Amino acid sequence: MFNSKEHSHTRLNILTGDWILVSPHRMKRPWQGKVEALPADNRPSYDPTCYLCPGNKRSDGTVNPAYTDAYVFTNDFSALLPDTPEGGENKNGLLVSNSESGICRVICFSPDHSLTLPVMEEEAIVKVIQLWKKEFSDLSQNQHIKYIQIFENKGEIMGCSNPHPHGQIWASSSVPLELTKETTQQKKYFEQHGKSLLAAYLDVELQKKERIVLENEHFVALVPYWAVWPYETMLISKRPVQTVTQFTAEEETALAQILKQLTCKYDNLFNVSFPYSGGMHQAPVNDGAHPEWHWHMHFYPPLLRSATVKKFMVGYEMLANPQRDITPEMAAATLQQLSTVHYSKQ
Amino acid sequence: MFNSKEHSHTRLNILTGDWILVSPHRMKRPWQGKVEALPADNRPSYDPTCYLCPGNKRSDGTVNPAYTDAYVFTNDFSALLPDTPEGGENKNGLLVSNSESGICRVICFSPDHSLTLPVMEEEAIVKVIQLWKKEFSDLSQNQHIKYIQIFENKGEIMGCSNPHPHGQIWASSSVPLELTKETTQQKKYFEQHGKSLLAAYLDVELQKKERIVLENEHFVALVPYWAVWPYETMLISKRPVQTVTQFTAEEETALAQILKQLTCKYDNLFNVSFPYSGGMHQAPVNDGAHPEWHWHMHFYPPLLRSATVKKFMVGYEMLANPQRDITPEMAAATLQQLSTVHYSKQ
Ligand SMILES: O=P(O)(O)O[C@H]1O[C@H](CO)[C@@H](O)[C@H](O)[C@H]1O
Ligand SMILES: O=P(O)(O)O[C@H]1O[C@H](CO)[C@@H](O)[C@H](O)[C@H]1O
Repeated sequence: MFNSKEHSHTRLNILTGDWILVSPHRMKRPWQGKVEALPADNRPSYDPTCYLCPGNKRSDGTVNPAYTDAYVFTNDFSALLPDTPEGGENKNGLLVSNSESGICRVICFSPDHSLTLPVMEEEAIVKVIQLWKKEFSDLSQNQHIKYIQIFENKGEIMGCSNPHPHGQIWASSSVPLELTKETTQQKKYFEQHGKSLLAAYLDVELQKKERIVLENEHFVALVPYWAVWPYETMLISKRPVQTVTQFTAEEETALAQILKQLTCKYDNLFNVSFPYSGGMHQAPVNDGAHPEWHWHMHFYPPLLRSATVKKFMVGYEMLANPQRDITPEMAAATLQQLSTVHYSKQ
Repeated sequence: MFNSKEHSHTRLNILTGDWILVSPHRMKRPWQGKVEALPADNRPSYDPTCYLCPGNKRSDGTVNPAYTDAYVFTNDFSALLPDTPEGGENKNGLLVSNSESGICRVICFSPDHSLTLPVMEEEAIVKVIQLWKKEFSDLSQNQHIKYIQIFENKGEIMGCSNPHPHGQIWASSSVPLELTKETTQQKKYFEQHGKSLLAAYLDVELQKKERIVLENEHFVALVPYWAVWPYETMLISKRPVQTVTQFTAEEETALAQILKQLTCKYDNLFNVSFPYSGGMHQAPVNDGAHPEWHWHMHFYPPLLRSATVKKFMVGYEMLANPQRDITPEMAAATLQQLSTVHYSKQ
């Protein structure tokens, strides 16, 4: 008989409409491939060579102020620039391009070079959330901006080039691919059921409890049924809001709490500052009402077996279909039992 | 005025229907992040500890024969297995899964542990192509198989766990995501124009010559207009065939030649055995005629600036939209001028 704990199967990602391949028995495969080097993790609170530390000079010559809470500035090497001229080409529908403008911002989570979200104080994380809200609402004032992507690359294995705790915001003049897919899927569901897709999904998950990692009054962290990265998680607000700006003060605190707890669990998984790319998905802006949209955050961590063995999304995954080895349920069970107290403080 | 060499823009991938973001000015960004270690590249022709070398024992106890040309066997740690029971679940369209069966094969390109495609003899590559053809046609005899993915992960940075020259074949009972997208797009074009999408695209590219890297009588290697990896290329057959099995003896030789030349250029780019995931896209099998399908190969190499600095497809790329820095035209210009004689033989 078919058993999802043992047998290969595909699962539907209801948010994108894509399918993923799960091959549970494949964890038995011995690993003889690449082993990552662990970056040193004994950073000072202030690093004179860090371009994000307070008072230091950035590459464009600007000197950072002596900031004490979360601090934001425009990326010195923005991928998107506000003054991009309009234009593009269309050669018989075969060569098609469009100019794209936007704004890229860098947000330092803390003046303290040695910290990360899991070891920051909850009150300091609340300050980060408040700055995300402010940035989101300021950027959306610009009528050219259609989507605002708030995210963090953590760890050098995730292409993060500076260990100072920070994230990024890329605001673009068109709606990016993943968001277009999520809008389509959520809209379809909302029109059929008059309810947010993720609210319906949360109901099922809260009943089953199999994939829930953390829950508080306002948020749930879970391993989505269709997770593709080994320890991928999703943070969903219980109240279906469209953007981060709608969170109340109470929700801000609850979000700070669950963010800290989730990232503590992550660090405790392999007793290492756990790398990931994480970020919010929210409704497009300057595009009318999006009642179907339900705010959430994704966390995509690359590690599979240990602090030094990662999951490679390569050949088959790039050319054919995303694929995972351990099941989402196994990953959730592991994350569930981990402490929310950081290993460095136990 | 808008200039695609300077200004950010999006480009349409006509094969998938997805858009990619190009930020040309971003190459100016200094890199202070992760630098990869170079794996040693002085392998012996025979390694007694390699489970792919002729005469050696594999993890399941099987002893490899003393093979002299390309050699294929069933993967000891197959992600897809033929005897998977049927099944799945569907909870209100929210938790949806389906059992997936299939067959995974490993194909050694050569008995010589020290070789790679660019340094193999053309005749030996022809043997690989002939084995790909045979495998494709054997696997498609199984009526449960709907798609056959032939690919290679090269280099430990691409998750390849054994440097012995080899590739893989994953045959599945459903059509994977990327192939579903490519089928849809090619079908739409074929129905509208009575011509293969890639044939029309090739016409435009052969006229422009801007993105062509190599050309022989039967094949073209180019940097696609919508390439997302820095030095991504595509190999397209001039004759629109649906699968590798349709190639004539002359086409086999031409394919071996262009494969060797392209991978030589790759190795010559940074004077290193160049990592990539590469593989063929072909029509689904046991699914009626697919006249819209046009055989091609994709090469996705991770390196950006040097042998040790790669492009990270992380935060923004995972959460929002694929993004590249150098333009496809810059990459093509660089690849064009590289020698087709391997650096080790110059
Ligand atoms: O099958 P291998 O070589 O052990 O594994 C490699 O290729 C597979 C298919 O692309 C990937 O799923 C794995 O993550 C990668 O390490
Ligand atoms: O902007 P950074 O931190 O220099 O760069 C990092 O994040 C970007 C956005 O996810 C990626 O495009 C880069 O590949 C990565 O190295």
